[in-house]
Amino acid sequence: MFITNGWYCAAFASEMGAPFARRILGQPVLLVRDASGAPHAMGDRCPHRFAPLHKGSVIDDRIECPYHGLQFGMDGRCVHNPHGDGRIPGAAKVPVYPVVERDGLIWIWMGHPEAADPSSLPDLHLIDRSSRPIVGGHIMMDVDYRLVLDNLTDLSHAAYIHAGTLSPSRAKRESTNEATSHSVAVHTVMRGVPTPSSQALYFDQPVGDYHSDIEWIAPGIVRQQLAMTACGEDADAGAVTRNVHLITPATATSTHYFWMHTRNRLMDDRSIDEQTVAIITNAFTTEDEPMMAACQDYMGGKAFFSLKPLYLATDFAGTRCRRIVEGLIAAENGEGGHADADAMTDEIA
Amino acid sequence: MFITNGWYCAAFASEMGAPFARRILGQPVLLVRDASGAPHAMGDRCPHRFAPLHKGSVIDDRIECPYHGLQFGMDGRCVHNPHGDGRIPGAAKVPVYPVVERDGLIWIWMGHPEAADPSSLPDLHLIDRSSRPIVGGHIMMDVDYRLVLDNLTDLSHAAYIHAGTLSPSRAKRESTNEATSHSVAVHTVMRGVPTPSSQALYFDQPVGDYHSDIEWIAPGIVRQQLAMTACGEDADAGAVTRNVHLITPATATSTHYFWMHTRNRLMDDRSIDEQTVAIITNAFTTEDEPMMAACQDYMGGKAFFSLKPLYLATDFAGTRCRRIVEGLIAAENGEGGHADADAMTDEIA
Amino acid sequence: MFITNGWYCAAFASEMGAPFARRILGQPVLLVRDASGAPHAMGDRCPHRFAPLHKGSVIDDRIECPYHGLQFGMDGRCVHNPHGDGRIPGAAKVPVYPVVERDGLIWIWMGHPEAADPSSLPDLHLIDRSSRPIVGGHIMMDVDYRLVLDNLTDLSHAAYIHAGTLSPSRAKRESTNEATSHSVAVHTVMRGVPTPSSQALYFDQPVGDYHSDIEWIAPGIVRQQLAMTACGEDADAGAVTRNVHLITPATATSTHYFWMHTRNRLMDDRSIDEQTVAIITNAFTTEDEPMMAACQDYMGGKAFFSLKPLYLATDFAGTRCRRIVEGLIAAENGEGGHADADAMTDEIA
Repeated sequence: MFITNGWYCAAFASEMGAPFARRILGQPVLLVRDASGAPHAMGDRCPHRFAPLHKGSVIDDRIECPYHGLQFGMDGRCVHNPHGDGRIPGAAKVPVYPVVERDGLIWIWMGHPEAADPSSLPDLHLIDRSSRPIVGGHIMMDVDYRLVLDNLTDLSHAAYIHAGTLSPSRAKRESTNEATSHSVAVHTVMRGVPTPSSQALYFDQPVGDYHSDIEWIAPGIVRQQLAMTACGEDADAGAVTRNVHLITPATATSTHYFWMHTRNRLMDDRSIDEQTVAIITNAFTTEDEPMMAACQDYMGGKAFFSLKPLYLATDFAGTRCRRIVEGLIAAENGEGGHADADAMTDEIA
Repeated sequence: MFITNGWYCAAFASEMGAPFARRILGQPVLLVRDASGAPHAMGDRCPHRFAPLHKGSVIDDRIECPYHGLQFGMDGRCVHNPHGDGRIPGAAKVPVYPVVERDGLIWIWMGHPEAADPSSLPDLHLIDRSSRPIVGGHIMMDVDYRLVLDNLTDLSHAAYIHAGTLSPSRAKRESTNEATSHSVAVHTVMRGVPTPSSQALYFDQPVGDYHSDIEWIAPGIVRQQLAMTACGEDADAGAVTRNVHLITPATATSTHYFWMHTRNRLMDDRSIDEQTVAIITNAFTTEDEPMMAACQDYMGGKAFFSLKPLYLATDFAGTRCRRIVEGLIAAENGEGGHADADAMTDEIA
Repeated sequence: MFITNGWYCAAFASEMGAPFARRILGQPVLLVRDASGAPHAMGDRCPHRFAPLHKGSVIDDRIECPYHGLQFGMDGRCVHNPHGDGRIPGAAKVPVYPVVERDGLIWIWMGHPEAADPSSLPDLHLIDRSSRPIVGGHIMMDVDYRLVLDNLTDLSHAAYIHAGTLSPSRAKRESTNEATSHSVAVHTVMRGVPTPSSQALYFDQPVGDYHSDIEWIAPGIVRQQLAMTACGEDADAGAVTRNVHLITPATATSTHYFWMHTRNRLMDDRSIDEQTVAIITNAFTTEDEPMMAACQDYMGGKAFFSLKPLYLATDFAGTRCRRIVEGLIAAENGEGGHADADAMTDEIA
């Protein structure tokens, strides 16, 4: 169902403070900062009568269960039983999940804790915004996370469902793909196209070249550079945005979608920040999410490949991405799955 | 679950034009007219990523998928792939369903296309209304279609749940039944009864004879003639309405109910048309549908006959109808089922 | 799932009159008084087409099915068939359930009727209110009844979720437990505690001793005496309330919660009655029920003991209660289960 051994975005750093709960890979997770400001992630379910711990009080960095008052340290261990002789049963603990705070985000590792290596977290390649507030958002999507990955790794949909918002016209796309055992990238150029409204906020020419570089890194990071340039220029010379899309499964049919946007033009213009939030939120919630939900409905609960989907040239990245996810899940389950890119080439050709 | 080899009403002809979707026998169906005005029915699910085609544009009688832009002709075949080298995979097609436009209705055949013979569509026996607009409606009922057939083939319920609206008082009913391998008919007379409010719109005597002739024809057509006459007169001499009720399963627990009403009195009076729509819609949606939904709830998901329902004299038609449906479904599934009326007589007696 | 051989509260006596339906132990039950005022409980599902009988009319102590007009006596037997020759099929009956009216309540026995002995109904130990109206209420809770029993048999939760409403501060509790094969009791004293707001209505000292005696009797009766006294006094000398909580499973995940409250102080003060209803309703619906529903959600449909809940000193009564329920259900199902208190002692220690 899910890859567990990997870093997922759990929250924006700015969300953290008092305890709150979020469902991640099907598990109820309590997120909280301790008095020193360090972030923590713990199981939200009290092992006594299964109450939601995040509804309790925090007393000296201990979470008090709201139902019967057991207190848990942020290392997950029960440290106080107010009842009877106060003895604490050995099983009185909740899981703790490794977390890392980086790039304004809280990253969580839901799998084997000993495998959680912060150095495996890739650089997000964002444009430095120094102390300016982040432009971003968190959207709950009522769809299987793999439909979201499909959506992001094949931007050919943009010309259809984002016509007039995020996407230039249906010009010829030139694309190349790259894949490793844990990632897939797609590089696309569309030449001499009208500037889409999202880029027109900070790129003042009506026509130019549109450069898109998008890369998925397992399990849930998508890095994206979009650039509008004068016709024929290199992407780096243009109005560049660097964005991330962080896809974290909540349940089998719902997904957290965190996104962040940075740009190299008019970086201090707060009104462009606000318009960007509005344009992206509108596109993701009124264009992408309803389409993915409709597809999920028409899939009728069946597994994707069992429905024998058509394979088009634009599906290289999405298909590879799904096969890598399948392989990593099978490997975690000891099923002899593999995520070897070469071995899969024939299968999807 | 469903008889597939049979004509079902899919829509009123007046609904047809731009693409829209309707669930029929569990399948998502796109209904559309081409530029020449001919109606078409196609699978609504794109074979690429399962998007709902009816949300796409129509370009020169081709449906463009709203997600990634594949275009499908109204024969179901993909005729344009805007991506890569434009090659169209052999599997790029959606099912098409035979349709017939007749009597102001669009009929669809969901089973084997080669078996779809328009001449098997029975005459609806409606009273000619020439160019006057149809009196009718389309109601979604959240109940198993067989509960709707039960309801229609045993009008003894009318004296109870339609008291004061569609039905005369609880007078003695004289009924006879007829059945074939594919149909069941019930002829009923109630003598010297108060005129129900639905007939009082165009029959001006307070008391008369009430004649009902109702006939179900598999899979989903119910023809009905109701007549109020002066006491002792023949039905044909009275105020006659000829109606059809067209029952099309949407899913296992929801049903399309199309109805049409014609009459031989005050045919040009639009205010009677409007009152008829109001009376019938009220009866079907506030009297019949809640009762059937309550029965379905109390059946708790169990099969009808497994609950050992009581068999009353009034249940001949409904029981025969259910057995014919069972037999036709079994025959389609090669289960050696039969719809032979005589063989079933003992079983239900 | 449920103990069936036992008296459950079905309704307040004051609710009875015209037919109404209530789901009890998963069954749809029609509750009605006959013309003489005697209460009756019958299956609400018509055996003909499964219509809800309570929506029908009552004609001379007969319930007429609202769909096709079969009439049932309050002994459950069909006594009139308005159709055909009027013959009544032998199977035309609905179950009847023994009922007893006592203490302003209607008690129902859903199991083997011959085992229904009214003398097995325990005295509720309420304080006599003579002709004054009852203080009480009926709340539907969307939780498994066993979570409600857990809640009631371990009042240690009160200091947490009812802080400021029903419960005194987190003072030291002195508790003793008693159990029989069919009951569990917990006696608790908290000395020198602030008077909770619910008791402050009729106990005028700011501090006192809080005495709680609560006893569950299988399957669904909880008797409770709460007393506030001056420090060091016996409970009987104080402001005493005697309450019952009557827990009747509706379905596997929903429960009827009937409660009644009596007190020995300011018994005639209607404004205290009203405030008591408000305080208790608020506590049960905004404090208890959401917490139990959250626990049920986090249990994810799993059986309670399969989740290996922690066992604390305060859990003796709740755990014993669950084991007695399990044993009685197993015994009814002939599974050789037992409800022997001694045999279970080791298991839960």
